[in-house]
Amino acid sequence: MTHIAHYRDTFISYLEEKVTVSEPKNLYEPIIYILQLGGKRLRPVLTLMTAEIFGASPQKALDAALAVEVFHNFSLVHDDIMDDAPLRRGKETVHEKWDINTGILSGDAMLILAYQLFENYKGKTFRALAELFSKTAIEVCEGQQYDIDFETRNDVTIPEYLKMIEYKTAVLVGAAMKMGALVAEASEKDAQGIYDFGRYLGLAFQLQDDYLDAYGDPETFGKQVGGDIIENKKTYLYLKALQNASDANKEKLTQLFSVQPDDTTEKVQAVMEIFNESNAPEAIKTAIEDYTSKAFQLLQTLNIGAKEKQLLQTFGEQLMNRTV
Amino acid sequence: MTHIAHYRDTFISYLEEKVTVSEPKNLYEPIIYILQLGGKRLRPVLTLMTAEIFGASPQKALDAALAVEVFHNFSLVHDDIMDDAPLRRGKETVHEKWDINTGILSGDAMLILAYQLFENYKGKTFRALAELFSKTAIEVCEGQQYDIDFETRNDVTIPEYLKMIEYKTAVLVGAAMKMGALVAEASEKDAQGIYDFGRYLGLAFQLQDDYLDAYGDPETFGKQVGGDIIENKKTYLYLKALQNASDANKEKLTQLFSVQPDDTTEKVQAVMEIFNESNAPEAIKTAIEDYTSKAFQLLQTLNIGAKEKQLLQTFGEQLMNRTV
Repeated sequence: MTHIAHYRDTFISYLEEKVTVSEPKNLYEPIIYILQLGGKRLRPVLTLMTAEIFGASPQKALDAALAVEVFHNFSLVHDDIMDDAPLRRGKETVHEKWDINTGILSGDAMLILAYQLFENYKGKTFRALAELFSKTAIEVCEGQQYDIDFETRNDVTIPEYLKMIEYKTAVLVGAAMKMGALVAEASEKDAQGIYDFGRYLGLAFQLQDDYLDAYGDPETFGKQVGGDIIENKKTYLYLKALQNASDANKEKLTQLFSVQPDDTTEKVQAVMEIFNESNAPEAIKTAIEDYTSKAFQLLQTLNIGAKEKQLLQTFGEQLMNRTV
Repeated sequence: MTHIAHYRDTFISYLEEKVTVSEPKNLYEPIIYILQLGGKRLRPVLTLMTAEIFGASPQKALDAALAVEVFHNFSLVHDDIMDDAPLRRGKETVHEKWDINTGILSGDAMLILAYQLFENYKGKTFRALAELFSKTAIEVCEGQQYDIDFETRNDVTIPEYLKMIEYKTAVLVGAAMKMGALVAEASEKDAQGIYDFGRYLGLAFQLQDDYLDAYGDPETFGKQVGGDIIENKKTYLYLKALQNASDANKEKLTQLFSVQPDDTTEKVQAVMEIFNESNAPEAIKTAIEDYTSKAFQLLQTLNIGAKEKQLLQTFGEQLMNRTV
């Protein structure tokens, strides 16, 4: 993990150096605020790490890494408006600290600033980065729209759900890694391979989020355990339970997911019982393992050294063994 | 004007062919809705016209023209949310017909789709278009922020106002024309020259908007005459009047612009009297003529034929002689 910490420090120094207030202040201050709120910096770290794994200096990948982080934070600012979320990383969201209009406009500017960061790359690399970025960004928007649509639909299938989380979350993990490969001018096959590695890992990561939300240790899990259940979120656990449950449990689960009681303890408990009876936790664990091992298999096809493969594998394992 | 009509028809056919609904429908239907609401299509027409003037087929410029129009409509969708506007081109705005979240997300997707359209151009042209687009787009955001800031400021200067309308409106007119030049692979000098031509014309156009809002013929002017006065908008007329007026009129004007009476007729009349007494209409007409003649002077420096210069000059004159 010292590697990861080093990439993160390098990235944060660069971010603090590059992202400074300019005029008009009311446009740029919210951008600096959200970018300095912290977070794991997972995506930019992946860009730097992948660049080095494919033989480039991580320094060369800093602008691409920053573009990914700026885009990720753009999507948080706009999503938080859509979700009416008051807090992000324990602090006020941009639209809460300023107002909705500021959130919209500063977010727009961030999307454009992300594109501008690619201008620091030459010819083919510039183009490849910008094209990958556009493709990814539009998929993230589509994923967000599917997520919104699913809230009011009662016939969401598991393949639809997987496509939604792939677009909303996983493709950006894949793109963050592929950008490192593009900066390092890796072969197309390797660039595609590392993209798929990241994408599978992103899917596993998101499913693990679903799992931990219900089955995480309240002592170590940062958020309220059962939050998804309380909010009637149709996660993988819910969809799998609905698929596998007895007719009686199906009806009960649908009913439980149509109400928002003040006292949530009983509801969470009842839902968890149905999850357990229909083997939803086992099913999600299998899905997580499947995606993780797909990612690790892909790793073997990459034209990189054994040490580099081990680095990526260790990273993936640590990500999947997290408890938060 | 047959030329203009021809470019417009060509553009609209292309738009209708290229912009079709895909999944998720809730993301793409609002995009098609706003793009098909109509409007003068001024910016894409300028891109096609400029491409042909610099020797390229207008067909070659269609994707760049579409990018400009998609971006312009993106900014309308988000601005209409910020302004809480119910109508656009006489029809419901996107956030009114759907909701605010749809307006935010569909707008975001439009910004990305605009970038993607440049992928239809090769090497240097792709890069030049994307860079110009990013620079312009960020200026449009900054212009919008200045516009918002000015609403609550009482010390806005005329140079600040001019910078705001330059960013919010004029740079996109310049960029629309420069894109035509880039597609036609015109020289850098010509590309910059046509950009400045468009920018000056855009400034003149926006100032004329200010003028017509107060002095337009109610018979031919599409909007309510005096609308800016009713909304206390600090236009060039207001700022000039405030600069030139007697102390008594300054105080009266400031007072009039701090209220929103139900009966607006008296207010509009009182404000117009101060405008007239302080020679604000003469000052704005001079500014419009200055920018227009700056544009026409630039025209003479371009490496294009006399016929092409005449075409641009006629276009500029028609734009400046409009009554709506």
